Amino acid sequence: MSTQYTIGLDYGTNSVRALIVNTANGNELATAVWGYEHGNAGVILGRDPNLARQHPIDYIRGAEVTIKKALAEARRVARGFTPSQIVGIGVDTTGSTPLPVDANGQPLALQKKFAKNPDAMAWLWKDHTGVAEAAEITRLAASIRPQYLAKCGGTYSSEWFFSKILRCLRTAPAVFDAAHTWVECADWVPAMLTGTEAPDKLTVGVCAAGHKAMYNDDWDGYPDAEFLGQLEPKLGELRARLRPKAHTIDRAVGGLTPAWAARTGLPAGIPVAVGAFDAHLGGVGSGIAPGTLVKIIGTSTCDMMVVPVGQSLADVPGLCGIVNGSILPGYFGLEAGQSAVGDIFNWFVNYLQPGGAKLGSHEALSTAAAKLAPGESGLLALDWNNGNRTVLVDQRLTGLLLGQTLYTTPAEIYRALIEATAFGALTIINRFEEYGVKVDQIVNCGGIAEKNPLVMQIYADVTGRPMKVSRSGQTCALGAAIAGAVVGGAHPDYATAQKAMTGLKPRVYKPKARNHQTYKALYALYRQLHDAFGTTSWTGNLHRVMKQLIEIRGQARQ
Amino acid sequence: MSTQYTIGLDYGTNSVRALIVNTANGNELATAVWGYEHGNAGVILGRDPNLARQHPIDYIRGAEVTIKKALAEARRVARGFTPSQIVGIGVDTTGSTPLPVDANGQPLALQKKFAKNPDAMAWLWKDHTGVAEAAEITRLAASIRPQYLAKCGGTYSSEWFFSKILRCLRTAPAVFDAAHTWVECADWVPAMLTGTEAPDKLTVGVCAAGHKAMYNDDWDGYPDAEFLGQLEPKLGELRARLRPKAHTIDRAVGGLTPAWAARTGLPAGIPVAVGAFDAHLGGVGSGIAPGTLVKIIGTSTCDMMVVPVGQSLADVPGLCGIVNGSILPGYFGLEAGQSAVGDIFNWFVNYLQPGGAKLGSHEALSTAAAKLAPGESGLLALDWNNGNRTVLVDQRLTGLLLGQTLYTTPAEIYRALIEATAFGALTIINRFEEYGVKVDQIVNCGGIAEKNPLVMQIYADVTGRPMKVSRSGQTCALGAAIAGAVVGGAHPDYATAQKAMTGLKPRVYKPKARNHQTYKALYALYRQLHDAFGTTSWTGNLHRVMKQLIEIRGQARQ
Repeated sequence: MSTQYTIGLDYGTNSVRALIVNTANGNELATAVWGYEHGNAGVILGRDPNLARQHPIDYIRGAEVTIKKALAEARRVARGFTPSQIVGIGVDTTGSTPLPVDANGQPLALQKKFAKNPDAMAWLWKDHTGVAEAAEITRLAASIRPQYLAKCGGTYSSEWFFSKILRCLRTAPAVFDAAHTWVECADWVPAMLTGTEAPDKLTVGVCAAGHKAMYNDDWDGYPDAEFLGQLEPKLGELRARLRPKAHTIDRAVGGLTPAWAARTGLPAGIPVAVGAFDAHLGGVGSGIAPGTLVKIIGTSTCDMMVVPVGQSLADVPGLCGIVNGSILPGYFGLEAGQSAVGDIFNWFVNYLQPGGAKLGSHEALSTAAAKLAPGESGLLALDWNNGNRTVLVDQRLTGLLLGQTLYTTPAEIYRALIEATAFGALTIINRFEEYGVKVDQIVNCGGIAEKNPLVMQIYADVTGRPMKVSRSGQTCALGAAIAGAVVGGAHPDYATAQKAMTGLKPRVYKPKARNHQTYKALYALYRQLHDAFGTTSWTGNLHRVMKQLIEIRGQARQ
Repeated sequence: MSTQYTIGLDYGTNSVRALIVNTANGNELATAVWGYEHGNAGVILGRDPNLARQHPIDYIRGAEVTIKKALAEARRVARGFTPSQIVGIGVDTTGSTPLPVDANGQPLALQKKFAKNPDAMAWLWKDHTGVAEAAEITRLAASIRPQYLAKCGGTYSSEWFFSKILRCLRTAPAVFDAAHTWVECADWVPAMLTGTEAPDKLTVGVCAAGHKAMYNDDWDGYPDAEFLGQLEPKLGELRARLRPKAHTIDRAVGGLTPAWAARTGLPAGIPVAVGAFDAHLGGVGSGIAPGTLVKIIGTSTCDMMVVPVGQSLADVPGLCGIVNGSILPGYFGLEAGQSAVGDIFNWFVNYLQPGGAKLGSHEALSTAAAKLAPGESGLLALDWNNGNRTVLVDQRLTGLLLGQTLYTTPAEIYRALIEATAFGALTIINRFEEYGVKVDQIVNCGGIAEKNPLVMQIYADVTGRPMKVSRSGQTCALGAAIAGAVVGGAHPDYATAQKAMTGLKPRVYKPKARNHQTYKALYALYRQLHDAFGTTSWTGNLHRVMKQLIEIRGQARQ
C-alpha cells in the first residue's frame, strides 16, 4: 500500500492554511498559507470598535489557493507524490463565526446587493457588537432555562452564535429577513467542499453548536423556540430552520465535489470530516486524551480536557463549556481559557513601548526578565486586561499591577505579567482537579509555547508541573488532517490516529523546586487579589499583601 | 531710610542658594546658586543604597561663594546697592541632617583623620541606614513613652535624628565616641556664621528638634536619658550634651562674625536667625497663616498648616508632626506630606521610558494626558511607590495600578498617576479638617506647582478647591530671608513681614464642576483601595471596583 496523506484546512483570523500530513507518522509533508484579501488582514472593521467581520469569498478562494499550493509543494519535496494519495480532508475554523445564508445555503454576501454589507458577512469570533444581546440572553436563560447556562459557565457570551444573530435582527433587519438561516463557518466550509450547503442537507458539528449555541441532546438540540421567541419572535421562528441534530468529527459530511476536485487537483469523492473549531482540533493534534490538559497559548489560551462519556462528571463552575463529543467522539469536551496571554505581553510592548527604543522588544524584555529571581521585583499582577474567561467568566474585569516602587523596571513588569498569566493557568488547573478532573500531564502548543522558553519555564515553576510542548508547530491543521485520516479510513478511530500522528518535542520544562516554593507564596497573594476583585463572596483583608511581597522580595534578593 | 534687604540662605540636597530680598515688598533682587563639590552632586553614596551623606566643608564654602556672588549680582542690577543695606540673614536647610561635632562644635569631618569617613560627615535627610534603629525606637517608645509618638504620627522614622545617631553608635563606634555631640545642619550653619558653634553656646531651633528629635517643652525637651539609655547606654549619656531648650525663628542666634563679614563682604554683626527646615521656611515664604494650607510639591510634598497656640488642637493621627513654634512663633506647626509625587512621574518617564523615543517625555505625556477626560481611561492608581507618609505613615506600602486593558496608553497611565497624587493630597486635606483644622485656601509652591498646569488643574478638580500658586519661585530662600528681616528689625513680627514680602501668582486653577463630580466618584474608589491595602481595620468587598471604573469610563466617553 502506498503512503497515505490527508489535508488539514485551517481557517484562522487572518489567513487559511492547508497542511498535507502522512497518516502513518504525522510527518508534515507540505503546507501553504494564504492571507485573506478583504478588510484589514482579513478582518472587516467598522466605526464601532466591537465590529469584526470576514468576507465568505475569502473562505472559498482560500481553499482553492492553499490546496493547490500545498499539492505543488508536496510534489516538489516528495518524489512520486500524487494527489491520489490524499484520502480525506478535515476542516477547522475560528468560532463562533456565523454567517447568514439564503435558501440554497449560499452566503448572502455573495449576492451583489449584500456584497459590501458587513452585516451580511461572517460575524467573526471576536466581534463584540452583541454585548447587550448577550446580557439579555443570559438574563432570560437564568430566569427560565438555567440548564442552558450550566454547561457554559453561567454566562452567555457576546462572541457567541445567538448574540450575533439577535444583534443582526435588531440592528440590520433587512439582512436578517433576507437570511434563510445562519451557519457557523466551521460547518459551512465542509458543506461548500461537498456540495451540502442546502439547509436540508447541511451537517452541523457538535463542537460549535454545543459550545456556542447551547445545543445539547439532553434538551433536544438547540434552545427551544419558546425561549428564542421570548427574546424576539423572529428568532423563535428561526429555530425551525436550524438542524435537529449535531454530529461529531468521526463523521464525513460528504465527498469532495467534482467541481472542487477540478479546482484543486484532488480526487473527487474523498470524504470531508465534520468541521470543528481550531482550538479543539488543536487539542486533537496535541494528543488530547483523558488526563492530558492541552493548552493552546497565543494571544489568549484555550485549555482543553476530555472525560469519557459515562464517567461521572460534575458541572464545573466557570468553564466555558462541557459538551458531549465536542473534541473527541465518545468524550465530553471541557473547555476553559484565559482571555489574554500573549495579548497582555503585546499590550505592554506595543502600547506602552517601554525601555526607549532598544530595550522594549519581547526579546530584550524576555532576556532581562529571565535574569530575575521569582519574587525579586516585589511585583504582583492580575492577568485580566481583557477580562477573565475562566474561572470568573467576567469580561468586565481589568488589569492590576501592584508593588511598584520608584525603581521598578520594564523587565520586572514584563516578568510580573508573565507570572500573572501563569497564576491564571494554575487557577484553571486547580479548578479542573477540584471537580474531579485529574490533570496527569500538560501539553502546550501555539506560538508562545513554541517561541518563549521563559514563559514555559515560569509556567512549570508556578504550577510545579512539567510543561511539555506538542511536536507539531501547526497542531490545529494537524488535528484537522487527523480528522481527514479518520473519515478517510486511514485509521479506525481517533485514539489510533492520534497515537500514530501526534507527538511531543524532546524538551520538557521541569519545575525548579526553589522557584516553586516562592511561587506558592506569591500564588497565595494572587488568589487574595483574584478573589477580592473577582468574586462577591470574599471578605478578607488585604493590608498584608504589600508587606508580604516586600518580605518575599527580601528573601529573593538574599 | 534707604531700602533694606535681607539674605536667605537655602541649603538643599545638591546645592546652596543665596537670595537677596527687598524687605519692603519681597522683590527678589539677586540670587546665586553653587553646587556642592563633594560626592555625587553633593551626596556621598556608599555600597549600601540607603547611605547618603554630605561633607560639611560644602556648607562652609557654599555660604561664602553664594553670598559673594549674590552681592555682586545685586550691585550689577541695582544702582547704588551696597551690602550695608543687608539687615539680617535667615537660614534653611534639609533635615533631619545631623552631623557629629567635637567639643568645640566643629564637625568631625573637618579633622584630617575623619575627612574621608562618611560616618563622620552630615547624615543627609534621605539616609535610610537606620531603618532597624528607627523600628527599635518606635517599639520602645510605644512601650514606655507613647506620648513621644503621639506628636509624630505614631512612627519614628529612619530619616530622623536619633535613628541616625543610634545607627552610628552601633556601626561606627569610633566616630560616635569621638563626637562630643550631634547638631542638625539647620542649627550648625547659623552657629558657624555667628561663631556660636561651641556646645554651650549653640542655639537649636524647635523646627528640627520638635519634628525630628521628639523635643517637646511638655516633657522637658528632648527624650529623657532613661529612655535613650534603654536604647543604648551611651545614647543616654549623650542626652546631657544636648541643649536644654529649643527656640523659634523670631530669635537671632547671634551676629555675623567679623571673619565671615570679611569673607563675604557683609556688615559684621548683622543678626542671623535661628535655622529651620527648608519646607517650613517655604511655608513662611508662601504666606502660611491659620486656614492656609501650603503645599510644597516637588519629588515629594510637604503639606503645612499652622494653628494658634491656645486654640484647641487634637493629636491628628497620621501627621508627621505637630510642634509648637516649628513654622511660625506662637503657632503649632502641623506637617503632613506625600512620600512621592514628582518622583512617581519621574519613575514612569525615566525607568519605564514609555512611548518609544518621542512620546515619553513629561511634556509629551502631559500634553496627551491633558486631552483626556476624568474617568475616561478606566484607570485608578495608588500613589505609594515610595510608601505613604500621611495619613498611613507606612514606608512599606507600594504602588498599585488598576483598570488597564489591552489598549491602555502611556498618557492614560501618566494621568492616572497624577490623579493618584491628587487623591493623596485630598486625603491629607480631609484629615486636617476631620480633626478641626479648617482649610480655607491652598497655596502651592515648588517645581511642579510652577511648571505643570495639568497637575494643578487636576488637583483643583479632584479637591473641588481653587489651587493658588505662591508668587516666588524660591519660597524656601524667601522664607529664610523673611526670618532675616524679622531678626534684622525690618518688620516687628512674621505676620507683618509675610504681608509685605509674600504674594500669589495671578493665575488661580479653579475646579471644573463636571470634572469634580467624576472625581468624587473616583475618589470613593480610591479610598476603598487605600483603606483595603493600607489599614488593618477595613473589611469591605472590592468586587465592584473594576466594574464601577468601567461604568465611569462609559459615562466619561459619552
